[in-house]
Amino acid sequence: MVKLAKEQIEYYMRQALLQAKKAAVIGEVPIGAVIVHEGEIIGRGFNLREHAQDATIHAEIMAIQEANRNLHSWRLEDCQMFVTLEPCPMCAGAIINARVPELYYGARDPKAGVVGSLYDLLSDTRFNHQVEVHDLVLAKDAGELLQSFFKEIRVRKKLAKHQRKLDQD
Amino acid sequence: MVKLAKEQIEYYMRQALLQAKKAAVIGEVPIGAVIVHEGEIIGRGFNLREHAQDATIHAEIMAIQEANRNLHSWRLEDCQMFVTLEPCPMCAGAIINARVPELYYGARDPKAGVVGSLYDLLSDTRFNHQVEVHDLVLAKDAGELLQSFFKEIRVRKKLAKHQRKLDQD
Repeated sequence: MVKLAKEQIEYYMRQALLQAKKAAVIGEVPIGAVIVHEGEIIGRGFNLREHAQDATIHAEIMAIQEANRNLHSWRLEDCQMFVTLEPCPMCAGAIINARVPELYYGARDPKAGVVGSLYDLLSDTRFNHQVEVHDLVLAKDAGELLQSFFKEIRVRKKLAKHQRKLDQD
Repeated sequence: MVKLAKEQIEYYMRQALLQAKKAAVIGEVPIGAVIVHEGEIIGRGFNLREHAQDATIHAEIMAIQEANRNLHSWRLEDCQMFVTLEPCPMCAGAIINARVPELYYGARDPKAGVVGSLYDLLSDTRFNHQVEVHDLVLAKDAGELLQSFFKEIRVRKKLAKHQRKLDQD
């Protein structure tokens, strides 16, 4: 597989960040992903858990499903995946199941990340597939996006509480 | 949550085995799952990876998605899940993400199982949800179903090889 240059890696991660922003706009936790095959983006996804009321619709799952459809194959050989946040067990497992060879991710997730934080599932040689992992790609952008999202939620909650108090008085 | 009696547990596992047999009939690795809410089956799934050419369509994912739709919620509180085989990382992660409180599974999967075999993800208190696990429920039936499936595949491959040799002679 062709090795990506730094500019290409950052370009694709910015595309994943764009997906994350789509999630933020509709009030979902902003996490985004893209999958690249021979230079072309063939899968895009963003977190849609609340709108879909579906526990499985994380950015990575949506992107893998679209890439599977586009390649007419459950095997994502010769693909690179870009995700703004370190994957959770479900998504890391899906990356193994889809045989994704290479993963680039942004911010670490110390609470649920299993690609370096809580576990290192993608390098475990007991599974039938291992993934080449590149972490902390544009991590600052991914982290800031998440922080500003949670800050806005806190402000909104505070305002709502204040409004309720005013309504009661 | 009501504690299930042995007969109930075996009844629901037999329903999961029925799902697994659907997979076998169409040539998919026979793994099945059901999700029960207040005594009613609200999610069913079987492995469909090859037919769908989708790396994410394992029995558990299909069952969780259906249960989410039926409850109009990504949270599967007060539900029990029954799977014929020990879940892989993707499915164990989905079980955490969907907040399934209780899992019953059949055979162990020493190659990819992460609910006792390679890892014990569902009891890791660092995640925001833990699952009560009951393993080896009708494990013999689930194991025999898988073994006879793989045996048939080996026989078919041998016959095909033999036929090719006859065609060449």
